[in-house]
Amino acid sequence: MKDLRTIVAAKRDGKTLSEAEIRAFVEGYSKGDVSDALAAAFLMACLLRGLEAQETLALTKTMVESGETLSLSGLGRTAVDKHSTGGVADGVTLVFAPLAAALGLAVAKLSGRGLGHTGGTLDKLESIPGLRTDLTPEEIRRQVGEVGCAVAAQSPNLVPADGALYALRDATATVPSVPLIAASVMSKKLAVGTDLILLDVKAGSGAFMKTPEDARELAEACLALASGCGRKASAAVTDMSQPLGDAVGNALDVAEAIAVLRGETGGRLRELSLLFAARALEQTNDAGHEEALAQAAEAIDGGAALERLRSMVQAQGGDPRVVDDPEGVLPRAPVREHMLADGSGVLAAVDAEEIGLASVGLGAGRIRKGDPVDPSVGIVVHPKIGDRLEAGEPVGEVHARDHDGAAEAARRVLAAMNLVDGPVQPPPLVHSWM
Amino acid sequence: MKDLRTIVAAKRDGKTLSEAEIRAFVEGYSKGDVSDALAAAFLMACLLRGLEAQETLALTKTMVESGETLSLSGLGRTAVDKHSTGGVADGVTLVFAPLAAALGLAVAKLSGRGLGHTGGTLDKLESIPGLRTDLTPEEIRRQVGEVGCAVAAQSPNLVPADGALYALRDATATVPSVPLIAASVMSKKLAVGTDLILLDVKAGSGAFMKTPEDARELAEACLALASGCGRKASAAVTDMSQPLGDAVGNALDVAEAIAVLRGETGGRLRELSLLFAARALEQTNDAGHEEALAQAAEAIDGGAALERLRSMVQAQGGDPRVVDDPEGVLPRAPVREHMLADGSGVLAAVDAEEIGLASVGLGAGRIRKGDPVDPSVGIVVHPKIGDRLEAGEPVGEVHARDHDGAAEAARRVLAAMNLVDGPVQPPPLVHSWM
Repeated sequence: MKDLRTIVAAKRDGKTLSEAEIRAFVEGYSKGDVSDALAAAFLMACLLRGLEAQETLALTKTMVESGETLSLSGLGRTAVDKHSTGGVADGVTLVFAPLAAALGLAVAKLSGRGLGHTGGTLDKLESIPGLRTDLTPEEIRRQVGEVGCAVAAQSPNLVPADGALYALRDATATVPSVPLIAASVMSKKLAVGTDLILLDVKAGSGAFMKTPEDARELAEACLALASGCGRKASAAVTDMSQPLGDAVGNALDVAEAIAVLRGETGGRLRELSLLFAARALEQTNDAGHEEALAQAAEAIDGGAALERLRSMVQAQGGDPRVVDDPEGVLPRAPVREHMLADGSGVLAAVDAEEIGLASVGLGAGRIRKGDPVDPSVGIVVHPKIGDRLEAGEPVGEVHARDHDGAAEAARRVLAAMNLVDGPVQPPPLVHSWM
Repeated sequence: MKDLRTIVAAKRDGKTLSEAEIRAFVEGYSKGDVSDALAAAFLMACLLRGLEAQETLALTKTMVESGETLSLSGLGRTAVDKHSTGGVADGVTLVFAPLAAALGLAVAKLSGRGLGHTGGTLDKLESIPGLRTDLTPEEIRRQVGEVGCAVAAQSPNLVPADGALYALRDATATVPSVPLIAASVMSKKLAVGTDLILLDVKAGSGAFMKTPEDARELAEACLALASGCGRKASAAVTDMSQPLGDAVGNALDVAEAIAVLRGETGGRLRELSLLFAARALEQTNDAGHEEALAQAAEAIDGGAALERLRSMVQAQGGDPRVVDDPEGVLPRAPVREHMLADGSGVLAAVDAEEIGLASVGLGAGRIRKGDPVDPSVGIVVHPKIGDRLEAGEPVGEVHARDHDGAAEAARRVLAAMNLVDGPVQPPPLVHSWM
């Protein structure tokens, strides 16, 4: 057997690895021939030396081949996957999945749990009493065929190499590498057989990528991997310089998504959900943009999307009355306090990550994998960049277990909002489509 | 406790670490709070981002403080340590230790075992029947006081952090970093209280550093560490573009060192041993160079150095008759075959590493830590760069377990010697002193 250290030495010395070398190394790691230590040295060398496009593609393919795949063909619907790189108050999946289903598409969304300052779609959905996310591949296929959408936990048998490598990257300070992130994201998308992959790459204070330029680089790397595997994909770089919606929590996020699907709430969450649904139609049906956007808006405003959510919740064992009376069905925190602006001015910047962490502090999220989350707690914060606030004006609510927790979260949220004198131009919702 | 990943992230991002951060990380590794994987990522980041002089010094100090230290003060002799970065047919320590003792100095040489293409002084010495190298600190002090020299195994309690980190570097392709090599070498020298540290940094095909420039960089890094710890040190960059002596093996190396100490053999091994002994006198007694060199030559030619070796061998339990009759006392290989030049010309280059590996192939060295070595086998090869050879002329001998092994080693040695037409200038023995 070849000494696998030579592969690490080659990357260390700035050489380009062959597909066979990358395959040997990843397979060696899966089989236990490569120690965690050697793999960590490899990951750091990849991070600092970079990976060429063909190296990233070989890594991604090898990761996909490390486990099972899920086919969504033969359902009689065009299958679409939508993935967000993670943000704060980012409930697009909860709106998009039933909306796309109402438009005749199929969405099987395999999600993860929240970690750090970003929430997880599974945690949010599980705040609906009774709802299961541990669906088998057959249950997913059947539900998608019948309802048009399913949101389920990603099986550990799907891309197991990514699970192992991601945990190692998290433990060894080797997360922030565009090729490694792209390989991780796309291996999970490519392992599911869909007709279109839509990527929402977030940029800003609440995202992993802090600038639109960095987010664009990641989006391009992801699209190159889809193209290298012969898969259709499209990506948007979208704004995460402030929370997308108003709600940061689990039940609170679900309630906000339901409000959007009921047509009661406008704003950026509705707008971005419509844009992704329209993009899906444009890419799969050759629909024009304005026509596709109008169809998507009608699917919400006419109630069809809400009915798809009701069917999905019911199919997954949840209480379907949640779509009619979210406040009555979803768990509620014992303490609910208003937050009041602590100064006057125009909102110029928001530290969205800090607001996410304030919600984690309330118990809504987790710092370490496996920590429990409280579905009821969280934060609702209304102002968006460019809005004028007056001191003492209500800006939102904290849902907490106790008064002290509420006060601490409110303090953090208010400190995360930067008020200035002059007028401020709101950031664009979408920086670019590609 | 601080998240120690942040220290790795800082180095990854090119930041300079504080002494406190380096200490926290190394101590965390020693205590098991830092996993091998996180330490491997750290080592790769150090290798690729580099370490500033003050970071390397902090790393070295922390490593020294990880274990016991050995004091050689109060012996009534000036204590000198000599260290070679490793080469082929590099028997200087075996000559230098008794020579320096004969000159009134004290040498307590703590050595390691051979690994890869370079031999280890312990393996060589242990080819003398009965000789022990597992001396206690008290035995070392007493022997150095009485005899003037001792060559013993480095205790695992001396710089244990280096032992652990070196094994991890070997396993993770993170060996070739000048600051990490310098910290490893010097931590072991600084843990022993001596008046002078002499470093022999090898450069060329048989050395870790392939060019004099790279070797000089390593020497400077080592000297900076000595200076940073208030210790006197001097270094030479010496030639390893060919084997230093003629013998590559264990008993063969000892026999060659004895021949030098008996005044029977001249050449580069004798010359370099004299230069280091003279350097030790110059640096510790303010002796002039010519006078010091003459004193050293007289210590060999008058037999005083050989008597010190006899006393040292006896003190360590070995058969002292080895100095009178090495061939009769040392183990001998069953097969001994001449090598004949396979062409005519002037020797222009030697792949010294390949000759070292040919000797390992015979069983004289080890590929992996813990492998046994055969004391009797090895290679003697006489020609040096610049020598003219005629086809069929004897160029040396192979000492092997069997004929097939001898033939394979001879083939490798002859292939490692590059003959050309024109005259060739021999390389300098010493590139520079510093």
